[in-house]
Amino acid sequence: MYENIKIGIFYRIDYVESAKFVLDKLANHFEVKHFTDSTLDFEEEKFPVDITIVVGGDGTVLRTLKKVKTPVIGIKAGRLGFFSGYLLNETDKLIEDIKNWNFTEDKRWMLRIETTKGVYFAINDAVLQKDIKQKILDFDVRITDGTFYYHADGIVISTPTGSSAYSLALGGPIMLPNVEAFEITPIAPQFLATRSLVIPSSERISVFVNDKANLIVDGDTVDQIDAIHVRKCTRTVVLLRPKSYDFSTSIKDKIGYGRKILGNGG
Amino acid sequence: MYENIKIGIFYRIDYVESAKFVLDKLANHFEVKHFTDSTLDFEEEKFPVDITIVVGGDGTVLRTLKKVKTPVIGIKAGRLGFFSGYLLNETDKLIEDIKNWNFTEDKRWMLRIETTKGVYFAINDAVLQKDIKQKILDFDVRITDGTFYYHADGIVISTPTGSSAYSLALGGPIMLPNVEAFEITPIAPQFLATRSLVIPSSERISVFVNDKANLIVDGDTVDQIDAIHVRKCTRTVVLLRPKSYDFSTSIKDKIGYGRKILGNGG
Repeated sequence: MYENIKIGIFYRIDYVESAKFVLDKLANHFEVKHFTDSTLDFEEEKFPVDITIVVGGDGTVLRTLKKVKTPVIGIKAGRLGFFSGYLLNETDKLIEDIKNWNFTEDKRWMLRIETTKGVYFAINDAVLQKDIKQKILDFDVRITDGTFYYHADGIVISTPTGSSAYSLALGGPIMLPNVEAFEITPIAPQFLATRSLVIPSSERISVFVNDKANLIVDGDTVDQIDAIHVRKCTRTVVLLRPKSYDFSTSIKDKIGYGRKILGNGG
Repeated sequence: MYENIKIGIFYRIDYVESAKFVLDKLANHFEVKHFTDSTLDFEEEKFPVDITIVVGGDGTVLRTLKKVKTPVIGIKAGRLGFFSGYLLNETDKLIEDIKNWNFTEDKRWMLRIETTKGVYFAINDAVLQKDIKQKILDFDVRITDGTFYYHADGIVISTPTGSSAYSLALGGPIMLPNVEAFEITPIAPQFLATRSLVIPSSERISVFVNDKANLIVDGDTVDQIDAIHVRKCTRTVVLLRPKSYDFSTSIKDKIGYGRKILGNGG
């Protein structure tokens, strides 16, 4: 059924040996069209493939998801990630799963962030944050319902996917990937506003700052700006995961939340 | 356009003087079909009305919303509530707003909680919680995606409406009323699971406990049980509020979240 599958491989440069191991295995079963350092520029149309394999951590998968239109599979040594559903020693299983298309197709939506200087897309989050030397900033967060004000070091607007990234570190909730909502979380807010706000993904969010702040999109600083406009992007990205590695398993494995612990039978 | 409007009034017994004040004013303009102590049993079909007015706090409005099928308006002395959109001294404005149907219709959905002993409905939340003398309980929270385990004093499942009630006190996020999601928040969990889980309202949640726990629905203890099944109820309730009193205003007024503070111009 899934014969003649064409595959592309991206790898993180310090995982090159693992990547070669994967390449050798996959090349016995599928047509591997490219084998590419993930930091290099890439012209997708020159290498048409059905599936993109990423050998690296969550960060490498995240950057690859934004680079290609195909479904993406993450594979890494050591421990599984939120985005990496296969361990290196499960490469044979991966080959079987590809042949049988035995995956959960995990669609994730993105943020579209517009400023006067450009448009950016985020799978995890958009952050507006002061420099170390700047004073605490005033943020006006406007949605249909009204305006929320924060006197804080920064503001994080995240997708459900991003809820287990920086937002989680700031005290936010864990959102299942299929929740249709944004999460807004202030960084070090005065005085007690240390809670996240969860709003429908159909909203358009504008954030105005009283000074220029750094705009950080999925971890990369892209701009210095005093206003952004955020909404759900129409494009989705697709992760393929083994059916056994669902979201609750990844949350339990990666951060221990909701895992059985001593005292409750585990 | 809105002539011959029939009105029912519920009041909290210690607000009876305020309620009489409202009754006298409204009776000059509308047909008041009943004037009822909110704690009494009530047969709605005997008193058909278009609008139900509640003189009392959020708790009284909440109980009334579950008792009647009409839209509900909350009015109280002192300060506004999440559910009470009019102050007592705004009764004349309320009369004009009724005549012109000048309201935001605020629809809220409910939880349907099923146990072996009965079915219950919650506007805010369903809580499973141990007695003081009981040991810490083991909760298995099952959703489509998998099972989360908590070793804790209790578990709160809340609607977006309930996110500003008990869940908020436990550290949960603030959810806009129109978010299509449940919030699950553990009470005093071992060891570091002090975060909320946000899941789509299309999910069905089952909670299993290793001992009987108190089931508390919107603040009332209704059962001792070791399993509950929760989903979104098809019935909605309708609050009428003045257009100026939106959700963000109520959040800023009631709990100070997102309000301008000294340091950001307010």
